Amino acid sequence: MFRHVKDLQFEAKPDGPDAAFARRLQEVLGGKWGEMTVANQYLFQGWNCRLPGKYKDLLLDVGTEEMGHVEMIVTMITRLLDNAPLSLTEGIAEDPGGAATYAGENPAHFIHGGGGALPADSNGVPWNGAFITASGNLLADFQLNVTSEAQGRLQVARLFHMTDDPGVKQMLRFLLARDTMHQNMWLAAIEQLKEDGLEDMPVPEAFPDSGEFTEEYGYTYLGFSSGTDAARGRWASGPSPDGKGEFRYDDNPRANAPEPVLPPGDPRLYGTNPGVAGSVVNTVKSKLT
Amino acid sequence: MFRHVKDLQFEAKPDGPDAAFARRLQEVLGGKWGEMTVANQYLFQGWNCRLPGKYKDLLLDVGTEEMGHVEMIVTMITRLLDNAPLSLTEGIAEDPGGAATYAGENPAHFIHGGGGALPADSNGVPWNGAFITASGNLLADFQLNVTSEAQGRLQVARLFHMTDDPGVKQMLRFLLARDTMHQNMWLAAIEQLKEDGLEDMPVPEAFPDSGEFTEEYGYTYLGFSSGTDAARGRWASGPSPDGKGEFRYDDNPRANAPEPVLPPGDPRLYGTNPGVAGSVVNTVKSKLT
Amino acid sequence: MFRHVKDLQFEAKPDGPDAAFARRLQEVLGGKWGEMTVANQYLFQGWNCRLPGKYKDLLLDVGTEEMGHVEMIVTMITRLLDNAPLSLTEGIAEDPGGAATYAGENPAHFIHGGGGALPADSNGVPWNGAFITASGNLLADFQLNVTSEAQGRLQVARLFHMTDDPGVKQMLRFLLARDTMHQNMWLAAIEQLKEDGLEDMPVPEAFPDSGEFTEEYGYTYLGFSSGTDAARGRWASGPSPDGKGEFRYDDNPRANAPEPVLPPGDPRLYGTNPGVAGSVVNTVKSKLT
Amino acid sequence: MFRHVKDLQFEAKPDGPDAAFARRLQEVLGGKWGEMTVANQYLFQGWNCRLPGKYKDLLLDVGTEEMGHVEMIVTMITRLLDNAPLSLTEGIAEDPGGAATYAGENPAHFIHGGGGALPADSNGVPWNGAFITASGNLLADFQLNVTSEAQGRLQVARLFHMTDDPGVKQMLRFLLARDTMHQNMWLAAIEQLKEDGLEDMPVPEAFPDSGEFTEEYGYTYLGFSSGTDAARGRWASGPSPDGKGEFRYDDNPRANAPEPVLPPGDPRLYGTNPGVAGSVVNTVKSKLT
Amino acid sequence: MFRHVKDLQFEAKPDGPDAAFARRLQEVLGGKWGEMTVANQYLFQGWNCRLPGKYKDLLLDVGTEEMGHVEMIVTMITRLLDNAPLSLTEGIAEDPGGAATYAGENPAHFIHGGGGALPADSNGVPWNGAFITASGNLLADFQLNVTSEAQGRLQVARLFHMTDDPGVKQMLRFLLARDTMHQNMWLAAIEQLKEDGLEDMPVPEAFPDSGEFTEEYGYTYLGFSSGTDAARGRWASGPSPDGKGEFRYDDNPRANAPEPVLPPGDPRLYGTNPGVAGSVVNTVKSKLT
Amino acid sequence: MFRHVKDLQFEAKPDGPDAAFARRLQEVLGGKWGEMTVANQYLFQGWNCRLPGKYKDLLLDVGTEEMGHVEMIVTMITRLLDNAPLSLTEGIAEDPGGAATYAGENPAHFIHGGGGALPADSNGVPWNGAFITASGNLLADFQLNVTSEAQGRLQVARLFHMTDDPGVKQMLRFLLARDTMHQNMWLAAIEQLKEDGLEDMPVPEAFPDSGEFTEEYGYTYLGFSSGTDAARGRWASGPSPDGKGEFRYDDNPRANAPEPVLPPGDPRLYGTNPGVAGSVVNTVKSKLT
Repeated sequence: MFRHVKDLQFEAKPDGPDAAFARRLQEVLGGKWGEMTVANQYLFQGWNCRLPGKYKDLLLDVGTEEMGHVEMIVTMITRLLDNAPLSLTEGIAEDPGGAATYAGENPAHFIHGGGGALPADSNGVPWNGAFITASGNLLADFQLNVTSEAQGRLQVARLFHMTDDPGVKQMLRFLLARDTMHQNMWLAAIEQLKEDGLEDMPVPEAFPDSGEFTEEYGYTYLGFSSGTDAARGRWASGPSPDGKGEFRYDDNPRANAPEPVLPPGDPRLYGTNPGVAGSVVNTVKSKLT
Repeated sequence: MFRHVKDLQFEAKPDGPDAAFARRLQEVLGGKWGEMTVANQYLFQGWNCRLPGKYKDLLLDVGTEEMGHVEMIVTMITRLLDNAPLSLTEGIAEDPGGAATYAGENPAHFIHGGGGALPADSNGVPWNGAFITASGNLLADFQLNVTSEAQGRLQVARLFHMTDDPGVKQMLRFLLARDTMHQNMWLAAIEQLKEDGLEDMPVPEAFPDSGEFTEEYGYTYLGFSSGTDAARGRWASGPSPDGKGEFRYDDNPRANAPEPVLPPGDPRLYGTNPGVAGSVVNTVKSKLT
Repeated sequence: MFRHVKDLQFEAKPDGPDAAFARRLQEVLGGKWGEMTVANQYLFQGWNCRLPGKYKDLLLDVGTEEMGHVEMIVTMITRLLDNAPLSLTEGIAEDPGGAATYAGENPAHFIHGGGGALPADSNGVPWNGAFITASGNLLADFQLNVTSEAQGRLQVARLFHMTDDPGVKQMLRFLLARDTMHQNMWLAAIEQLKEDGLEDMPVPEAFPDSGEFTEEYGYTYLGFSSGTDAARGRWASGPSPDGKGEFRYDDNPRANAPEPVLPPGDPRLYGTNPGVAGSVVNTVKSKLT
Repeated sequence: MFRHVKDLQFEAKPDGPDAAFARRLQEVLGGKWGEMTVANQYLFQGWNCRLPGKYKDLLLDVGTEEMGHVEMIVTMITRLLDNAPLSLTEGIAEDPGGAATYAGENPAHFIHGGGGALPADSNGVPWNGAFITASGNLLADFQLNVTSEAQGRLQVARLFHMTDDPGVKQMLRFLLARDTMHQNMWLAAIEQLKEDGLEDMPVPEAFPDSGEFTEEYGYTYLGFSSGTDAARGRWASGPSPDGKGEFRYDDNPRANAPEPVLPPGDPRLYGTNPGVAGSVVNTVKSKLT
Repeated sequence: MFRHVKDLQFEAKPDGPDAAFARRLQEVLGGKWGEMTVANQYLFQGWNCRLPGKYKDLLLDVGTEEMGHVEMIVTMITRLLDNAPLSLTEGIAEDPGGAATYAGENPAHFIHGGGGALPADSNGVPWNGAFITASGNLLADFQLNVTSEAQGRLQVARLFHMTDDPGVKQMLRFLLARDTMHQNMWLAAIEQLKEDGLEDMPVPEAFPDSGEFTEEYGYTYLGFSSGTDAARGRWASGPSPDGKGEFRYDDNPRANAPEPVLPPGDPRLYGTNPGVAGSVVNTVKSKLT
Repeated sequence: MFRHVKDLQFEAKPDGPDAAFARRLQEVLGGKWGEMTVANQYLFQGWNCRLPGKYKDLLLDVGTEEMGHVEMIVTMITRLLDNAPLSLTEGIAEDPGGAATYAGENPAHFIHGGGGALPADSNGVPWNGAFITASGNLLADFQLNVTSEAQGRLQVARLFHMTDDPGVKQMLRFLLARDTMHQNMWLAAIEQLKEDGLEDMPVPEAFPDSGEFTEEYGYTYLGFSSGTDAARGRWASGPSPDGKGEFRYDDNPRANAPEPVLPPGDPRLYGTNPGVAGSVVNTVKSKLT
């Protein structure tokens, strides 16, 4: 159950309007790595978590914070949309940037949203539930959360260079600080999982190893592209990070099975089948009666 | 440029048909974490990579291998679809599982695909390009690749328990071994990036820190959900994994900005505006003339 | 800013597992009219609302409650997924319903979600942001909210007949009661808007009328399908609900403009153009030089 | 069965080209609330309607009219796309608006559509079937139809201010008049349903009430957001619009169920389970043999 | 402008209910190659067609007929959904097929559609506008229309074998006959285009040839997969169908450009750049000031 | 199994940057008819092909070549994105086109892709698996492949006129030459299929004809739109292309079945049913007990 506090976690007020930047800011609201993604991802992971205690608490704490970030960015976008040029004529009538602002806007911000933020990315493509994963395996999901925060901080850092507005930049700085915390936090959570003996590498560690294939394929780098530069990386020799094997390098990976030859299909599906040219009509007809 | 070898990297032949399991196997072909995702993700990361040498080579090598995994799973699915019951009558006429196989099939496998695999997940939802990310920042992307392989191995391990077919299980064992290698490999690549001094935490490390906010918000855990179990985790005290701060715990995070009050919108957008009830028609009319 | 209370607004515990019903229950979680829709819709409407006071408060109150309903249904689905048959063999080994449960499951619940709920509908199609609208015009949006609650209550009522589980039914009864409240509430809010003189029919009332067309087309029913049964409805005669006109019925609506004839297109777009057969190559070539 | 008349219901001819506005006009063709939505929604509602007579007639009449609106807007957009600048060079060479027109265009109008309209919204996102609902319950659907026409009229009114073209404005005036009619019509249809004793509030009225919960939860406003402004609305006290209850206001809604604790999951799904750290590998292995 | 006739073009009445087959039949209603696709595709092609006369007439005639097919299939599906088992208990209580029918249903048919057809495919994925193309080039589009009718007839033929219901089979026979006509018709239209001198191969013929590349690459088969079986096909030697070249076969296609080396990216995008490890922070910082 | 050659099939280097054109070029990378579509379509057709030998070889050869085209276009787009204006200020500071370039960019190219290409179309909508078809019937699929190459060549020809960059134009010329080859090739493959006696018209020829309906409906043109221009086309009289019938023209097609009247639905679905107004509540209640 949630309670809402109308005050914001942090101020979300631009110094002036900028509808073209508002469109860009949508990426960290409703894009693949935006705040809607992390909010929903952590909450679903928390609700689906079968471990009571600190991990579940962690997920629900942070998911709830991210809902507050969704709120902040919605508010910022809505304010950036004020006083936008609605027509080409208006855009041209404004300062040199007016026409470009008109052209660079997301028209749906006005036609659909009436001057308000939308749950969509910087191209107006709606956010969707496939952006999130709650797999039940906390190690796999905490790894995902690390990259979610990294991708998110990366995008906010890029947006920082796309505006001159001091108010916007101030909010972005706050988000960058929280993304720093959250990257660190998920990495610490991975360490905690290992310390607690709950999960380890490779995910899922509980799966019995691949038997006969582990030795040959579990630690061998296969070079399928031309060039052998990759042989110089840590992934091609030395001990593997899971502590269970030794990397090897194979620049000429072999095929292990012959070209597949598929049998004729069910004639009632009318695929093109081998060697049946003359008789297929009869086959189908007899099946039909 | 690619060349194709008709022989398969590994055998993809079931001992018998099973259309309902074929539907399930689609998840690791065309689902969010399936082979189409990793193949395309690594290739786009490689093509967009601005670092010639071992990292670019790594990405293109593995992306190319994953194309071969796409081929194996397509082949396996197509063979599993042979001899499927096309109608309820046929399903019932078969052994006890016939009716359930009919009911559990993906109908599009037959109506659209003619008995062949589809680029879609286990519910028939098409694969889409938003499943992949190539951000240009190798640390963020290698973290994503770690979880991609972890989620992928997790799904293959689950599928392992959803079938009794020895031929299917053998191919899954091979894929599990490769996912083991690939998880290790991306973790090693993260270490290599740090050793080479190219990237470090937090992503993107090159962004100047958040200034005034770093100290207060860059390392503080904010507890927004009831309960304080999370205070016992490694993420709430002690040094942060990036080596730059010390975690703190705050169970009562404060709001930093007052409730936002938005100004009236452009009357030509016909949003409901404060205090304008009587006059909005006139305003619009005068703007129109 | 939000705070989360770990206790649930209402109990969400089934008496037993039922993976096939869990799939169905997803419709009111992540379907078009599910709880994710109403939660996000009301919150976006509230955040984008330019009227401080009771309307904004109303939207944020109810949006926050709906987040708690999302949590309840996620919890219920996750519990319904326990002990599900993972394979056809297991399904058949169970009681008569085992095979049908296996066949009727959403496989992604297990392969992707690891036995947890997903942000998707009853067919596994992900929830998306286009399901919600926050137009800025409160009358239009409150009308949408009325139907959202009506469609939602309708779906919950249907689900009530699709299970025998007392625990599930109890939670559904609670949701039905809240949907009753919310339908009433949005209708009352529409009345309040009118009383406050903020909005009225037709939406947007502030738009100057359609001038010359208002009389002929603003209140005339046009019968484009065969039969004249519709002439007997209240929409075909008598005063219109907005109190501004009188309905008329026209069973033979006329066309007002001749068949459109489009001019030839830009030859560089290579559309098939009238009367240019012989010369188009030359035209393009000359444009190219 | 349909018949098509090549003449248009109303003229759809702009005074001049404007590719950037053409992109905006797509919103009311292929956006969520555009003409493709209402045409298909009313037709599906009509075809699925189990009541012969005036209601079915109404739905099919209006759905058929909307098909003619689709045609008009397609025609208008195609004409607006004439003579568009295809390249930046061309855009700059034109009058001051040329470069902005180039930048504000939907490129797919030319590359994919060859200078013709597309079944997509103002951002080029394709129209999809989830935009429509035909629930079988006419009261719920007529409420949806009211808001569909309100949202549609709202969008057309906004577009009216985004262009100076007299021909475009004339067509928009016609559409505004029809949307006025249609809003009134669906409201009248709701009244008719009630008069005919077919449906009433709350939807679905035929569902037995929520028993024990009706009194406590069926008419109580729960305040989950800070502030009590909402207590001043008609939704917080007085009789409810369905005539069956009395509104109450509760500013401190309670949780009714304890924090949910989920049991360990099936070990074959490899979720992170409580208290099983040491033994899970053995469990899985024994299940596998 | 359209008019609707309530009588159907052809009877759409099954002899009995079958909800699992109803789900399958959705593929030819709202799937990629279903009736919604051809109806909308031909209408958009007709409306966007810049050639008045027989071609435009052809497109609008057939598009209008296909709207009537949409109506027939919606009607058939709705009738097939009658008396469906709503719960597992009901399914089991019925004849042997009851449980499988329950499991094989699309739950949204009942929960969302109330027992009516949906604009979606056999997996419940909504129809979308990207399924259609109206490119403006009639030759390219008529080729698409040929395959649309071929894919459509193929799907109907497959569905014919998935049911025993005489009423369903009768409607499918009618659709098969119309698909036969339409395949022939679009092929005849291609011939007509060539006879009229409007379009020819390769599409778009009006584009000046590829200059220096035409001879080497315009008619050469490049063998990128292992094996040379393809050398025995008509596409590897002899005159090309466009009458303008002679096929050649090359089993060892060469690369024409060296491995691409990308320059460092803008440091403000924080991609991983070559040779900048030490200095990138400074660069960014200096750009920021 | 695939191998990758780092050298490109053809040079992909522009003479200068152009972020607005880069957005346009995405259409032939990740749009419906782009290189991702043909690469995946031919590979899936090849993998699912049940005919060993020249047809399977053909499909896999060309699919593999198209993967190399994906690589070329990704490379070109990434280079076109260099030095793009990241903010409005930067855009204005550049030459006259700078502001329009800023406004016409795809923001996700920078925020998400870090200056690299994306698997999406010219509006940023992700590529999806529904763009491809592998039906199992080679005649239907080769027809699709013909139009895929025609639509693709059409789009490349249009893009040729949207840029002045010599390097871009050179790559487009190469692609145009290959599209010429591929159009010819698939047409030759259709002829080969017929010569080999494997498939013929209408698709699927193996389906027994439509019996009683063949004569009346298999070759009759039905005129559902006003006007009779279509009667003058080759599709309205003379022999049909499949050599099996004679075209006829019918300007007044008749309806063959009366208006459908649907029975009342299951009361537990709460649809609005005929004649049940008073009693439905009781019915439902009795069903519930």
